[in-house]
Amino acid sequence: MLSFAENTFSVKNNMKSFFKEDPSFVLNTNCLNFCEHQTKFSVRNWFETHGKKGRKVPRGNVGTVFSRFETPSNVKITVIGGGSFGTAMSKVFGMKGYQVCLLVRDRNIVDGINQERRNPKYLREFTLPHSVFVSPFFCNCSGFNFMYSKATSNVESALEGTQLVVHALPVQVSREVLERVAPFIPTGVPVLSTSKGLEVASHKFMFELLQETVSNHGNRRPLAFLSGPSFAKEIMQELPTAVVVACENLEIAGQIAAMLSSSIFKVFTTTDFIGVEVAGALKNIIAIAAGMAEGMGLGMNAIAGLVTRGCSEMRRVAEFLGGSSVTLSGLSGVGDTFLTCFGPLSRNRTVGYRLGKGESLNEILTTSQEVAEGVATAKAVVEWLPAVLNTTYTRALVRFPILLSVAPILEGKLTPEEGMQQLMAMPPTVED
Amino acid sequence: MLSFAENTFSVKNNMKSFFKEDPSFVLNTNCLNFCEHQTKFSVRNWFETHGKKGRKVPRGNVGTVFSRFETPSNVKITVIGGGSFGTAMSKVFGMKGYQVCLLVRDRNIVDGINQERRNPKYLREFTLPHSVFVSPFFCNCSGFNFMYSKATSNVESALEGTQLVVHALPVQVSREVLERVAPFIPTGVPVLSTSKGLEVASHKFMFELLQETVSNHGNRRPLAFLSGPSFAKEIMQELPTAVVVACENLEIAGQIAAMLSSSIFKVFTTTDFIGVEVAGALKNIIAIAAGMAEGMGLGMNAIAGLVTRGCSEMRRVAEFLGGSSVTLSGLSGVGDTFLTCFGPLSRNRTVGYRLGKGESLNEILTTSQEVAEGVATAKAVVEWLPAVLNTTYTRALVRFPILLSVAPILEGKLTPEEGMQQLMAMPPTVED
Repeated sequence: MLSFAENTFSVKNNMKSFFKEDPSFVLNTNCLNFCEHQTKFSVRNWFETHGKKGRKVPRGNVGTVFSRFETPSNVKITVIGGGSFGTAMSKVFGMKGYQVCLLVRDRNIVDGINQERRNPKYLREFTLPHSVFVSPFFCNCSGFNFMYSKATSNVESALEGTQLVVHALPVQVSREVLERVAPFIPTGVPVLSTSKGLEVASHKFMFELLQETVSNHGNRRPLAFLSGPSFAKEIMQELPTAVVVACENLEIAGQIAAMLSSSIFKVFTTTDFIGVEVAGALKNIIAIAAGMAEGMGLGMNAIAGLVTRGCSEMRRVAEFLGGSSVTLSGLSGVGDTFLTCFGPLSRNRTVGYRLGKGESLNEILTTSQEVAEGVATAKAVVEWLPAVLNTTYTRALVRFPILLSVAPILEGKLTPEEGMQQLMAMPPTVED
Repeated sequence: MLSFAENTFSVKNNMKSFFKEDPSFVLNTNCLNFCEHQTKFSVRNWFETHGKKGRKVPRGNVGTVFSRFETPSNVKITVIGGGSFGTAMSKVFGMKGYQVCLLVRDRNIVDGINQERRNPKYLREFTLPHSVFVSPFFCNCSGFNFMYSKATSNVESALEGTQLVVHALPVQVSREVLERVAPFIPTGVPVLSTSKGLEVASHKFMFELLQETVSNHGNRRPLAFLSGPSFAKEIMQELPTAVVVACENLEIAGQIAAMLSSSIFKVFTTTDFIGVEVAGALKNIIAIAAGMAEGMGLGMNAIAGLVTRGCSEMRRVAEFLGGSSVTLSGLSGVGDTFLTCFGPLSRNRTVGYRLGKGESLNEILTTSQEVAEGVATAKAVVEWLPAVLNTTYTRALVRFPILLSVAPILEGKLTPEEGMQQLMAMPPTVED
């Protein structure tokens, strides 16, 4: 049976074959169809509408959101998603004594955590605090056998009385889930997203996706975003980790930071959610490029140079959209990107590495269990970025040669060697 | 026999014992005495005098400096220093066909390069292009047996007709050498420095040191600075490398970049030499801190977080002195720092690593052949930075906890564990 993420990626990639195989899937694809009908290049539209300084993000009734917080054991937090990062976030909150309700779909994970205090699928070697309990919302999802009423009642109980919702699902399945849970999140309760990336079908960032689902006109609420160099495994090992929480309302960001902070978890705050989101989405493309250089055996100078220049491109995109260079040179920007590119081999870097060794993307995809999010993001950015900049691909390529060269290499239009040669052959320019 | 760098560091550290052992050394220490009598906290003075925007750097007769350049084989470049980076720079220029004169003091290096086209001491596995020849200026220096007139005549021939001087000596010996070679550098010829760090005795950066020696009132000339993630060994292996050249005159920077650029050596330019210099000097302190985290077994999250926050501190110092955040998030900033902290174990990181494992600095210094520049820099910064900021150490520590905590750990006033605990215990703040 496919995992949650794999399942959803297959849905996105092979939707037609799924329809043929199982008509009952229709129910599940409503949301996908919906998001494919969204206007494309949404950030451009958003940018044109709101301008660089005129960001409008729903604030909700923010001043009083956390006023009821007394002792952590009286506070309920709901974490949506039982993958590595959702499990790690449960641990961070659980260690502080908060009541954490982890909402997952996999019956094995539900039983594993509730009986043995371990997630049997992700990071199984670590136990979870006793304050973490699990609610089995999505347990029958993989068989496409929806029991909506049961699910609803579970979601309802999982979100009842919660004071903070933590979203930790892959971006590509987020819209579907968020639309279903949105009605049950109490009014004004903030949502903290740990998911990063572009929704491929709509070219939208998580903050836009959250605005459209859980914080729309009917029920505005504060949205916060957590990012930084943070392997879930090391969080579970209780090794020191520093992250940043972004929320347009700095007070809310500070309150969430205070809830998360401990001697092993250091949290900085920022209002610049755009910067955090752009870095989170684009860093996977840079990881593929770094992997390619690694696969080609180009050495550490080349990788460091490539990643640095990639981060500069990322910074310029973020600044164009109203983000801050401070964020991009911070934990969610260069910190997370360099860890991804110099730490243990990630999925995205593995794809790059194998491309650099001469394999084609098809060969890699057919022999790989995991799906690297950067592959879809790289392809999306080739359409999205020139449109946002209101220019052609060729003109944009001069300013963003790394972000825009990965897709042609993935598609086999360019070899990794040619890509590197093009990069090196560009005339000397001012560092920007 | 000690190497050039070790020799000079011993001089700095044990000057008194050297005097006792060998009175002939007096000649050699004139310059050291001179620089110790310089005003301390020079950057502060410089900053107060010139202000953030009013930087005044000697420009010389810059417009025509490179006008005589025709074909590379007609152009002579003098590289001072036969260490790893001097050798690598000779290769980069030599491969482009320039006549490169490498000025070194070690007779073995002179013979090795002139006879076998290899530096027998550094990176001996690689051959140098035929256009590189060597002049033996400093060959008798290590025995403290100066033959000044001979040396002078060699320097004179090495610098005669040169059109670019590349400085590749350790910072702590630079003043001495530069003062001696200065009279022989032709008028208006630019000096490109690849050395990075604070001169410990005077708390001065290389750009100040160069201003006081080769580009003073009598003979102003353009000064340029090269930095970036660039292991000398990988340059010798002809692996792709990207660096930045900083010069207040962007035209000169561009001309030097064009001279260096090749399919394996990509050069960006900037006018922000302050940013390049500050990053070059302070990154060694961050490397010690990263090494400590590694030695304590704190994991990749902690190292990445520490390095990122260290880079932020570095950026704030640079911005205060008039540097640009773009430079600090570029090749000479985060690029070089992350490579130092995540690449092969450097000298600075080794010191940190051993401290993290529980050794004292004394134990490390007595059993180590190499001297880590970051040790001296960390100690200097504790005096220099609060003075530059016109505040106390305790107040400055709040804003610069990483840069200012390394020295107390080196001095044994704080254990690495206590340092890390202090860092983690700081209240949540806005990322800056």
